[in-house]
Parts: sequence; C-alpha cells; structure tokens
Amino acid sequence: MYEGIVQDLIDELGRLPGIGPKSAQRIAFHLLAADPVDVRRLATALTEVKDKVRFCRSCFNVAQSELCRICADPRRDQALICVVEEPKDVVAIERTREFRGRYHVLGGAINPIGGVGPDDLHIRELVARLADGTVTELILATDPNTEGEVTASYLARQIGPMGLRVTRLASGLPMGGDLEWADEVTLGRAFEGRRVVNA
Amino acid sequence: MYEGIVQDLIDELGRLPGIGPKSAQRIAFHLLAADPVDVRRLATALTEVKDKVRFCRSCFNVAQSELCRICADPRRDQALICVVEEPKDVVAIERTREFRGRYHVLGGAINPIGGVGPDDLHIRELVARLADGTVTELILATDPNTEGEVTASYLARQIGPMGLRVTRLASGLPMGGDLEWADEVTLGRAFEGRRVVNA
Repeated sequence: MYEGIVQDLIDELGRLPGIGPKSAQRIAFHLLAADPVDVRRLATALTEVKDKVRFCRSCFNVAQSELCRICADPRRDQALICVVEEPKDVVAIERTREFRGRYHVLGGAINPIGGVGPDDLHIRELVARLADGTVTELILATDPNTEGEVTASYLARQIGPMGLRVTRLASGLPMGGDLEWADEVTLGRAFEGRRVVNA
Repeated sequence: MYEGIVQDLIDELGRLPGIGPKSAQRIAFHLLAADPVDVRRLATALTEVKDKVRFCRSCFNVAQSELCRICADPRRDQALICVVEEPKDVVAIERTREFRGRYHVLGGAINPIGGVGPDDLHIRELVARLADGTVTELILATDPNTEGEVTASYLARQIGPMGLRVTRLASGLPMGGDLEWADEVTLGRAFEGRRVVNA
C-alpha cells in the first residue's frame, strides 16, 4: 500500500474500464512525475465533460448544446437518417465522409440476455422523428452481430409499414482482406449481397 | 472527431502511458455514462496527488509530509538500508514482510544510453545517510537487468570502502517456476548462488 492519496488515485484509476491494478500504478507514478499543468488539464477535462456534455435532443448523440453539431448543421440532408447504436459509431461513419444525412443514436442494441429491450433504446423518439414525412430513407447501421441484427430487424418490422425506404449497411468481405481467411458467415453474406459488375 | 470537450478528454486520456486512442475513447464514454460523483472523485484524486504528494526528505520515497511513513516509523531498523530504483519497488518489498529496515529510492538506474548518469540519481544523498555509521548493512535491490546490475556494481564500488556490509538480492529460479523454462542467465545465476542444504 502506498501513502493514502497515492493509493486513492491508484484505486480511482483502477476503476476505469480496461485498466488493471498494474496499469493504474504505472499511470499514477507517471502523473506524480508529470508537469502539474498537464495533470490539472486532465482533471479539468474530466469535470468539464460531466458538467457540459449532454445528449442531443433530436438524435441522442453527444452534444454541447440542445442539438449536436450534426443536427444543428443546415447543410446535412434532412431526408436521410442513419440509425446507430452508440455515439462512437457516428464518429466512425463521419470518418468515411460518405454520409451527408443525420443520425439517430439508439443508445445500445436489443439484448434480451443483458436485459435490454426495445423500450430501453431511443426507438420511440426515432418513430416520432419519422412522423412528419420529411425522412425518406432510414439506413440501419447497427453492428453486424447478433444484437445489432436483431435490433435492425425489429426496426425494419416497426418502421416498414410507415412507407419509407429502410436499408441496411452491406455485409461482405472487408476491403484489404483475404478471401481465404474470411469466416463463413461473412463469406455467405458476401455471396448473398453480390453485385453485377459494370464492364 | 467528437464535440470539443469530449475530444479534449479523449486527447488527455490518450497521453497517459499504455492508453491508446481506442482505450481513451472507451474510457471517455464510460465516464460520460458514469455517476458524476465518481468522476469528480477521480478528478479530485488527480489534483490532490499533485498538491500533496512530495518525496521523503530522507529516502525519496513518496510521502505526504517531510518524511515518508517508513522513515517516520521508529520501529524500523535504522541499521539497515535497502536501495531500490523506484517507489513501486518499496511497495513490492513491503508486501513480502521480510524487511524491517529503511529504504533509499534512487529515482531510476544508471543508463548511459538513456542519458541517466550517477549524478541524476539520489546517490550523493545515500552516501550522506551512511556517513554517521548508524547503518551497518546496505542491501542493493535494484532490478536484475543490465541497468540495475550496473547501478548495483557502481554503488558497491563507491560504498564498499566505507566499511559497511554491502549485499545484493539473490538471483535464481523464481519460486513456483519450472527449471526447464528458466533462461540461461537465471539458471547460471542459480548455480552461482547455490546454497548448502541443511539435512
């Protein structure tokens, strides 16, 4: 055991996800030796984030005001909504620069074993956003795993009757990959989703 | 990129040792969802540690006052000093409950490639502690690697002429290990340091 407050810091760091006691100790000693200004900046970033970050009233992405940057941007296409599980998925899609519509962050995926049902996600709010008919296409971009697939088909069933186009991101071989190493589910999906090549 | 302050937090976390951009993102989103009280406790632990922790005037271990808990404890044997590289080594040795003397934390090891010479370590202060003859044995517990060995032999050469007993921690096979898997240096050291078994 270290002197009280050093141990306190190690304990607090050890509570963070993916940080075990050894890493916590390493980080604590790094901080002890670090420039006080840097440590204070980290402490400030921590408190700021809790004080100032909230969730977008419209899409539930992280935001610093009522609306997130994307919902507040008039240049984004109002007719297109991309449904994702988490705010980090928004960042991943934004990096592609392929999508110019808006998002809807569900806050997770349906997972009966984990006790997450449709009512625990922002699905009701999504349906409300679609009510006025501005949105013409809904892109389901939940994760390509069991929970994400279940959530996507649940949404397709709920929203299909509303008459707008509902699409799902393509599954297939990852670019730069090797066919030989693809798992059979991915390879099966790649066959299913095969496209005509324009010569 | 996330909204400004979320990205700020991710950047600050990513500067910590052993935390890459993905872990930083994961921790940031964990903190966003965490209880504000927990986050504030972490922020407080960070600032407290910089405000209150200093290094022991005598042994350079981490301390909350002039002297660390060990140097301030009158029950610890004054005749014995164990020399270690870092404060975390003190904790490791304390856990064994084998040692009842005091420590001297060098603050590193001699490493010419890394630009660490004897003058960058608390060696002068160690020699000063030995001057009054209270200490009768100095145990060199620097790491059993190149830098630690170099530091130990440097200290042995410097302090040997002062007439006190200078010892080095035993090298050998780790307990619970398997002879077959021991590296040749360790196995060689184990032979060198072999001891008579009392029947």
